[in-house]
Amino acid sequence: MTENVLSIAPPYLLFIGDVQDQLAAKTAAGILQWRPQWCIGQSRLPGCKADLGLREMTPKEAAAAGVRTMVIGAANSGGILAENWITSILEAIEAGLDVASGLHMRLNDIAPIREAARAAGRNLFDVRHPTQRFATGKGARRSGKRLLTVGTDCSVGKMYTSLAIERALKEKGIKADFRATGQTGILIAGSGVSVDAVVADFISGAVEAIAPANDEDHWDIIEGQGSLFHPAFAGVTMGLIHGAQPDALVLCHEPTRKTMRAVDYPLPDIEECIDLNLRVARRTNPDARMIAVSVNCSALSPEEGRRLLDDLAQRTGLPCVDPLRDGVEAIVDRMPGL
Amino acid sequence: MTENVLSIAPPYLLFIGDVQDQLAAKTAAGILQWRPQWCIGQSRLPGCKADLGLREMTPKEAAAAGVRTMVIGAANSGGILAENWITSILEAIEAGLDVASGLHMRLNDIAPIREAARAAGRNLFDVRHPTQRFATGKGARRSGKRLLTVGTDCSVGKMYTSLAIERALKEKGIKADFRATGQTGILIAGSGVSVDAVVADFISGAVEAIAPANDEDHWDIIEGQGSLFHPAFAGVTMGLIHGAQPDALVLCHEPTRKTMRAVDYPLPDIEECIDLNLRVARRTNPDARMIAVSVNCSALSPEEGRRLLDDLAQRTGLPCVDPLRDGVEAIVDRMPGL
Repeated sequence: MTENVLSIAPPYLLFIGDVQDQLAAKTAAGILQWRPQWCIGQSRLPGCKADLGLREMTPKEAAAAGVRTMVIGAANSGGILAENWITSILEAIEAGLDVASGLHMRLNDIAPIREAARAAGRNLFDVRHPTQRFATGKGARRSGKRLLTVGTDCSVGKMYTSLAIERALKEKGIKADFRATGQTGILIAGSGVSVDAVVADFISGAVEAIAPANDEDHWDIIEGQGSLFHPAFAGVTMGLIHGAQPDALVLCHEPTRKTMRAVDYPLPDIEECIDLNLRVARRTNPDARMIAVSVNCSALSPEEGRRLLDDLAQRTGLPCVDPLRDGVEAIVDRMPGL
Repeated sequence: MTENVLSIAPPYLLFIGDVQDQLAAKTAAGILQWRPQWCIGQSRLPGCKADLGLREMTPKEAAAAGVRTMVIGAANSGGILAENWITSILEAIEAGLDVASGLHMRLNDIAPIREAARAAGRNLFDVRHPTQRFATGKGARRSGKRLLTVGTDCSVGKMYTSLAIERALKEKGIKADFRATGQTGILIAGSGVSVDAVVADFISGAVEAIAPANDEDHWDIIEGQGSLFHPAFAGVTMGLIHGAQPDALVLCHEPTRKTMRAVDYPLPDIEECIDLNLRVARRTNPDARMIAVSVNCSALSPEEGRRLLDDLAQRTGLPCVDPLRDGVEAIVDRMPGL
């Protein structure tokens, strides 16, 4: 990881405020699912209706237990940080913790928080808002192997699939690192860049920075964003693919969606999607291969899901799996050299 | 033009400082070439070796002659604004002029300039640095016709070709507007957005904003940026194509270049380039057509250029012209409905 990429220090205290249901704490739940060893405790406010099942801790207790960063692991309502959340954040800073947030609203824009952090010498991480400067992409081949998840649409399971592949590789003793490109992924990885918030000229350069040259037998598992077929976000996806120089691509898909996210566009045809992603990827890595399709079947019954995956496998000639139901073994088996 | 797109008021006083050759004043020369009716005078400092052939004016004289904006039409050396340039800018503000600049360094970052403009109620335009907020792209079809220039590489004549087409259409009495996406184009058009400086999520949304719904018989001629094949900048190009929803595409090319700009990559094959640009464009406009190839033959003799264009026309089946030598009549003739 190059020096201009942010780095959040674990372990974490997960702050979920006074959210009114478990879903509002899904960022914290995601961190706990993928990095349980980093999650020492939870901090909640009176009336909180979510529970991560972690030990309840004040920032002071957390600091004493070795915690280094309090992570805001809940969505706030209305985009405004409530007074009682601000109080908790100030307590964390006072206790000697850094604070990391994936909220739209910046911690650095709230004067009391900014000033308290400066006075205490603590770091504030607004992971949705990159502050680093990147070079423009070079396109030069670099050592190490890279896998990138791409999608038929936004929010179809690219982060989940990437993290599941990283975990499976590590369990096999293969050197691998998840490389985060969105806010939740960054909080899970402790580093990365929100590529959709980078200035357009630097999209691929930012990806080159978060997935730099590495050992020849090391795999970066890069979290994809958007879709080459999304009329609003395809530019982000394009730069991400070029910067990633992927050896392997995994196409992620949600089969019950009727239109693309937030726009009145049909989902692309799977075969067309595979073809265009490969064509673009081969510009910066001529050896790029599509190795599998990862389908989020959660809206389908097990039988419906099975049928859909079998049909898709027949059409594409690729392993097609639901990573939650089937695991990602079939994907990992297709990674070149494994 | 929607209200969140900047608008620089003509006519202009062109400031070229004390540059040491004509090339360093090429921004001013471009404005004068394409908008002579807006260029009332030039302002130079002692020792200036460039000359636009315009009447020499102080900002005060320019203001009296009706000028509303002083445009910094020269490149400064070293990225630092010299003291004598700052003095000239302050004089312009004092004289009641706005100031527009395409330099990397922001006028708004120089305290005396910023404060003088605020005190005098004048506008400072740093056209390389968008300050407007855009929505994400909607992808909804909008009325009016659009032509977009695309390229085999960066800096291959997209702005020149676009402006030549706009001029040819206006001479025929056809409603047309050049839509600028880079700093020189913005100074020429008086409005537009530097799309490569927009946050990645908003590339296509910004293009939708600068080329909004219009009369059915109106043509937006949209200046392209980068290339789908450039490993650093393809994301910008992708978002630009999706946001433009072009009815017509013109591929721009520079035939003597050995590698793509600033990277060690071969130029793409022309046919492949036409094919990929069309494929991407048809996602947001199924009727998109590639209508011509525009080649900058300035590095070739007239005979060499002619041979190359004939060969290219044979291979592509499209009109292939050098807009400077041949004009753009052959391109305009192919615009659907004209």
